Amino acid sequence: MQDRTYTADAEPGDHVTVSGWIHEIRDLGGIAFLILRDSTGKIQIKFEKDEMDDDLVETGLGAARESVVSVSGSVEEEPRAPTGVEVVPEEVEIVSAADPELPLDPSGKVDADLSTRLDNRTLDLRKDDVQAIFEIRAEIMRAVRERFREFRCTEINTPKIVATGTEGGTELFPITYFGEEAFMNQSPQLFKQLIAGSNVERVFEIGPIFRAEEHNTPRHLNEATSIDFEGAFCDESDAMDVAEGIVKAAYEAVERNCGEELEALGLADEFAVPEGEFPRLSYEEAIERINATGELDEQLVWGDDLPTEGEKALGADVGGHYFITDWPSEIKPFYIQDHDHDEQLSTGFDLMHPRMELVSGGQREHRHEKLIDGFEQQGLDPNEFEYYTKMFKYGMPPHAGFGLGGERLVMTTLGLENIREAVLFPRDRQRLSP
Amino acid sequence: MQDRTYTADAEPGDHVTVSGWIHEIRDLGGIAFLILRDSTGKIQIKFEKDEMDDDLVETGLGAARESVVSVSGSVEEEPRAPTGVEVVPEEVEIVSAADPELPLDPSGKVDADLSTRLDNRTLDLRKDDVQAIFEIRAEIMRAVRERFREFRCTEINTPKIVATGTEGGTELFPITYFGEEAFMNQSPQLFKQLIAGSNVERVFEIGPIFRAEEHNTPRHLNEATSIDFEGAFCDESDAMDVAEGIVKAAYEAVERNCGEELEALGLADEFAVPEGEFPRLSYEEAIERINATGELDEQLVWGDDLPTEGEKALGADVGGHYFITDWPSEIKPFYIQDHDHDEQLSTGFDLMHPRMELVSGGQREHRHEKLIDGFEQQGLDPNEFEYYTKMFKYGMPPHAGFGLGGERLVMTTLGLENIREAVLFPRDRQRLSP
Repeated sequence: MQDRTYTADAEPGDHVTVSGWIHEIRDLGGIAFLILRDSTGKIQIKFEKDEMDDDLVETGLGAARESVVSVSGSVEEEPRAPTGVEVVPEEVEIVSAADPELPLDPSGKVDADLSTRLDNRTLDLRKDDVQAIFEIRAEIMRAVRERFREFRCTEINTPKIVATGTEGGTELFPITYFGEEAFMNQSPQLFKQLIAGSNVERVFEIGPIFRAEEHNTPRHLNEATSIDFEGAFCDESDAMDVAEGIVKAAYEAVERNCGEELEALGLADEFAVPEGEFPRLSYEEAIERINATGELDEQLVWGDDLPTEGEKALGADVGGHYFITDWPSEIKPFYIQDHDHDEQLSTGFDLMHPRMELVSGGQREHRHEKLIDGFEQQGLDPNEFEYYTKMFKYGMPPHAGFGLGGERLVMTTLGLENIREAVLFPRDRQRLSP
Repeated sequence: MQDRTYTADAEPGDHVTVSGWIHEIRDLGGIAFLILRDSTGKIQIKFEKDEMDDDLVETGLGAARESVVSVSGSVEEEPRAPTGVEVVPEEVEIVSAADPELPLDPSGKVDADLSTRLDNRTLDLRKDDVQAIFEIRAEIMRAVRERFREFRCTEINTPKIVATGTEGGTELFPITYFGEEAFMNQSPQLFKQLIAGSNVERVFEIGPIFRAEEHNTPRHLNEATSIDFEGAFCDESDAMDVAEGIVKAAYEAVERNCGEELEALGLADEFAVPEGEFPRLSYEEAIERINATGELDEQLVWGDDLPTEGEKALGADVGGHYFITDWPSEIKPFYIQDHDHDEQLSTGFDLMHPRMELVSGGQREHRHEKLIDGFEQQGLDPNEFEYYTKMFKYGMPPHAGFGLGGERLVMTTLGLENIREAVLFPRDRQRLSP
C-alpha cells in the first residue's frame, strides 16, 4: 500500500503523510487551520503564516473545500485541537481540486433533502452520520452471516433471472433473455427449498430481490436485499428460533462493534439489544388485541389481512419485537403448510418490529400431492413450476424457513425514518439513477 | 431445534433419532443394513430380521432409496460398519416416500450428464462430491469477505437494475421498469467508484452480474458472481496486492477448513496453496513469451488482445498464477487510467490462472476532464453517465480496484472442468430453468 497514515493512527512524534478531503479551513489571520478528513476521522493541520513558506501556505489554504489533499509533516500534541494532535505541514499537495460550488454540503451544516442526497451519494457519504449507517449495515450483514453459520447453515447463491416468479406472474419485472420472456426473481423461495431438499440441508442467502410493486412508501423498495433461511428437518417453531437469533445477532454486533458509528448517529445512549424472548401471538390473539386498542375505524374479523394501522397499533401495544403465528391459510402462499389439526390454519408466521413487518416464514408443504393442490387452489398452473414440484417426488424432507428484509432490519435497528436511507442507491418508481 | 442427532455426532452408548435419506439397503438374508445419509455423513442401521418386530423390519426395508426416514435406536460400536458404529433401531418412520424411479442416481454409481444433473439439482446435491463443491464455495466466499475486512474494506451492495450499462449498450439484458427502459447491471464498476470517492474509501461487493454475451463455453455464464474491490488512495499495484491476497485467502481457507470436502472430491493429496508472489509480466513481455512458445499459427503484434490459445500457452509456460500489466490503452475501458509517461499504455492489469483470466483491474481515471475525453474516445455519450461523471468534480481521490469472477475462482481452485459445476442453477443461452 502507498505510504499513507490514516488520521486516526497519527501519534505525536510521528512523521506522516495524511491524505483526505478538506473538511474546513479556519483562517484566524496569522494562523490558520485546515481540517483534513479521511475514512477514520479528522485531523487539524496548522499553518503559521509568518513562519512558513508562502507557497506552502498558499497551496494549503487556497484550495476549495472537499478538494483532496496530501499533507506531509510532523504530528504534535495540541490539547486545543479536536483530536488532541495536529500536523505541522512540510509539504502540501492538491491531489484533486474540487469545484467550489458543491451541490451538497458534506459538513452537514446545510441540510439537504433526501432526493438531493441520493443524487449526490458520494458527497452525502462524506458525512459522518451517513457513513455510519453503511458501516453498520456492513457489520450487521457480517454478524448475520456468522450467526447463520453457527446454526450450521451453508451460504448459497440462487439465480436472479428466472423463467417463472415465485408466486406467479404478478409484480414481476419482465426481461428479454435471448429472445425469451424471463423475469427478475422476486424471492429465492423455490430455489432455496430445492437446496434444503439436498444433502446441504440448511442454507442461507443474502441477495437482491426485485418487486414491481407500485407502492411508494417510506418502507418499500423495488430492489431490496433479502436475508433468506431454509432448513431441512425444521418446523415453523425452529424457523422462528433462527429468525429471532438472526435479528438479535444484528443488534448485538452493533452494540459490541459500532460504538463510534452509534455516536455519529446520536444513538450511543439509547441503543439497546432487545431483551428476553420475542412473544408469539396467534393471528387470532393479534386481531383481538388490535380491535381492543380502538385505533381502527372498523373492527377486524377473522380472515382479514392486517392493515398497516393495525400493525402499528399492535406494535405500540406489545412494545417490542413479536411473532404473529397461525395465520389463515387462505392469505398465505401455496408453499406454506397448513396445520394438520385445522386446514384453515397455516404454519405461516411473521416477525414484527413495532414499526413494521420484518420477516415472513413458515413450515413448507413438502408433500407432492398437497403441493400440487395448493398451486391449483391459488389459481397457478403447476406445470409451469414442474422444475420445482418434480423434486418433491424424490424424498423431500419436512423443511421450514423465512425471508427477512435486509434494509428493514437496518432501518428498524437504527430507527431510520425512510428505508432509502439504508440503501446506497435505492430503486423505486421514481428513481432509476444513479 | 427438533430432537435429532446428526449422523456424524452419533456416539456408541447414545440413544438417538437420526433423520435423513435412504442411501442404500443391503439385504443379506437374515440380516440387512439400511445406510442412512444426512448432511454430515452416513450411518448404518442394522436389521436382524428374526429378532425384531416384523413391522419395524418391513417399514425399514420396504421404502425406496432416497425416501426420507427417521430412525430411533441405540448406537453401538461395530468395527465392520463404515463409520465404526451402527444404530439398532427401535422405531422407524417413513417421513417422505420417494418414487422408486429416480431421474438421477445420488449414490453416484450411475453417471449422469451435466444437463440431467442441473435439471435435478436436488438429487445431484445429495452426492458427496457435488455437496463438497458448494460447501467449499461457501467457505471461499467467507474467507474472501474476511480478508477484505483485513484490508479495511466495507462491504457494500449496489443496484442491479440500472439506467445505463457500465460500458454502454452492448451485452445488456433489457428490462421494463415501470414503463421505462432499464438494464440488468453488467458490473458494479461505476457504483463502487462513487463510493470509493466518499469517506467509506475502500469497499468490496460480492453479488450477481448479468452479461448478454452469446458465448457458450465451459468458462462463461450469463449470470455470474462478481467479487469487486475498489479503494481510494490506491494505485494499480495496491489493487494487485489485494487481488493476490484475496485469491490466496481462498486457497488457504480451503486447505485449512475443507479437508473432508477435498477428500470427497479426490483432491486431498494434490491440493496446494499457490506459493510465492505472483509474477507480474508486462503485456509486452506476455506477447513475446506467447510468440516464443510457437503455439499460435500467427505471431501476436502489439495492440492485439490475447486469444484464448495464447492465454493457455502462456499459462503453461508460467506454470502458476501471474499478472499481465501495462496493457495497450485502446483495449481497456474508459475508466482505466493511462500511464503518465506513455498515454498508449494503461494501468490496467489482469490476474491470470494458467487456465483462464480471473481478475481484471487497474487504476481508475479520477480526473474529470480526462474521464470525459475517455468516454468520447470510446464512442460513448458522457451525458448519459452524468450521474457518475459529475461526482468527479467534487474531490475524487485517486483510486484503483478490480473485479474477480467468483465462479472462476471456485472452478480453478478445485480444477472443475465446467464453470456450471460451480453454480447451483447456472444461466446460459440454453438454460433459464430451474
